[in-house]
Amino acid sequence: MSKIINGKNIKNIPWEECPKGFEGPLWRYSGNPIVKRHPSKEVARAFNSALVPFNGEFIGVFRGDNLDDIPHLYLGHSKDGVHFELEEERIQFVDQNGNPVKETLYQYDPRVIPFEDKYFVVWCDELNGPTIAIAETKDFKTFKKYDNPFLPYNRNGVLFPRKINGNYYMLSRPSDSGHTAFGDIFLSESKDLTYWGKHRVVAQKGYEWWCALKIGAGPVPIELDDGWLVFTHGVNRTCNGYVYSIGAMILDHDDVSKVKYRCKNFLLTPEMDYETNGFVSNVIFPTCTLVDAETGRIALYYGAADTYIGLAFTTVDRVVDYIKKNSR
Amino acid sequence: MSKIINGKNIKNIPWEECPKGFEGPLWRYSGNPIVKRHPSKEVARAFNSALVPFNGEFIGVFRGDNLDDIPHLYLGHSKDGVHFELEEERIQFVDQNGNPVKETLYQYDPRVIPFEDKYFVVWCDELNGPTIAIAETKDFKTFKKYDNPFLPYNRNGVLFPRKINGNYYMLSRPSDSGHTAFGDIFLSESKDLTYWGKHRVVAQKGYEWWCALKIGAGPVPIELDDGWLVFTHGVNRTCNGYVYSIGAMILDHDDVSKVKYRCKNFLLTPEMDYETNGFVSNVIFPTCTLVDAETGRIALYYGAADTYIGLAFTTVDRVVDYIKKNSR
Repeated sequence: MSKIINGKNIKNIPWEECPKGFEGPLWRYSGNPIVKRHPSKEVARAFNSALVPFNGEFIGVFRGDNLDDIPHLYLGHSKDGVHFELEEERIQFVDQNGNPVKETLYQYDPRVIPFEDKYFVVWCDELNGPTIAIAETKDFKTFKKYDNPFLPYNRNGVLFPRKINGNYYMLSRPSDSGHTAFGDIFLSESKDLTYWGKHRVVAQKGYEWWCALKIGAGPVPIELDDGWLVFTHGVNRTCNGYVYSIGAMILDHDDVSKVKYRCKNFLLTPEMDYETNGFVSNVIFPTCTLVDAETGRIALYYGAADTYIGLAFTTVDRVVDYIKKNSR
Repeated sequence: MSKIINGKNIKNIPWEECPKGFEGPLWRYSGNPIVKRHPSKEVARAFNSALVPFNGEFIGVFRGDNLDDIPHLYLGHSKDGVHFELEEERIQFVDQNGNPVKETLYQYDPRVIPFEDKYFVVWCDELNGPTIAIAETKDFKTFKKYDNPFLPYNRNGVLFPRKINGNYYMLSRPSDSGHTAFGDIFLSESKDLTYWGKHRVVAQKGYEWWCALKIGAGPVPIELDDGWLVFTHGVNRTCNGYVYSIGAMILDHDDVSKVKYRCKNFLLTPEMDYETNGFVSNVIFPTCTLVDAETGRIALYYGAADTYIGLAFTTVDRVVDYIKKNSR
């Protein structure tokens, strides 16, 4: 079996045993959705968010769509990884010299990447169009923003949680300025987080219908001894709109531009009311995992219908086994 | 008046005096189009191409649409800058170690940038979608290709012809994977041509209708003592398709992310049969200028209707005066 590398123990990881007789790779938390409409005063909907263990509890960066439908980023706190309190004020970023950065028009779909003694936040920002942004924090109080790593138009930037062969690596999904009817996963390399290059194609949309329109990276890649486990979103374009499902692949351990295994089936697709019905119906969108190194338990957080946050569970053994058995 | 900086004398620059009574900023060559259909055996149409003075004559990199409509790059030779012979074989690129590079699916809209003791070729290449490519040559025999500077999707990359404050600068126009219905000019910075960052917005599509859909950089910027003269293309979206005109702006001399003057009028718009009628009608697309430092004469080359190459003339004084008087 694959072994977790550079993992951490998370004793209080949220967990619920797999329902008896259930054979799928991921099962939903019975208390879903864990974040409902109007989680705070100025936020109509929170979803596509990310958390990390912090001081024995959990802290997260949340996408909060305001009362004008425009998304911004908020800190959220949780003792158990299931119940959250969102701060009322948006996160205020500073530049590398500590001076406040002028707020851009919108910010959405954050990922939080534990990295050495700090955390990176990577999200979709506005630079005369959507593109990726990076900020760094140690204490979740001061967030130092970098220059945008890529030109517009781009979304779903996901930084690897450590340097590989001395370089930073970022997955992203170049897009257009609207509801992009295409999407593949690319890899980019940097020595300093400011200048990026050596862009490579990692994974293209599939012939399988669930990801035939686009595919993008989800949570921070999970390092295994024989590769990197990457949960993805895949999109089917139906006559009545896009349907977003959760998929997965395993990248080569040393050359992360190479796909070793790619699951031909979705791992989860919108089926529950809170997934099929909401502000944007039929969307489940994974943006975060917690992984307990000791047990191999995975708690996966996903946006549901661009309205709620859902939680699902699996183990490294179970999901890797499913991916390998159903790999194309 | 603005003075040309770092200019070269080109004694044999193509030239024709301005027709008597003509008051516009640019006038067309009476012998247009200078490159007609089927300029070589495998090429149905050549357009959007660029040349430089070389060994007392001229040499250029041409976009040649093949007999399957797919564009590739060809060398072309001319004694007078008006009559061209295209080579029959496509340009073969090598990597930085001199090994042949696998040909990508398509290559188009090259610019040729004289730079110190060498030339850069910048064009739209294929990396699982259109994006910019860079190659370097000294002799127009060996072309060393770099890694693609930007992720897809991007077109109309134009490198500045010298380092500014120690950095390379490139304009580009991020796009989508198709006939992009948006387009603004961005600037990116690099220390080594491989890793790029510090992306800035330079110019957005205008409220003026001729450039209301998109705007992109054209030929290599021309250095003046008080700024950089940049010819552009601007696009109007009509009910029957896009119309591409030629515009211009002047960027700040030291901070090339800043527009000092932006001409509110087009300088030239499709009006001649070879511009309004062809493979893609109603397109004029500037990709090259020759500038004679001694006289200030400018010969501007443009693709016409994605079918022909046209030539137009002006002088630095005349066009800068027009831009400044008609600046918004």
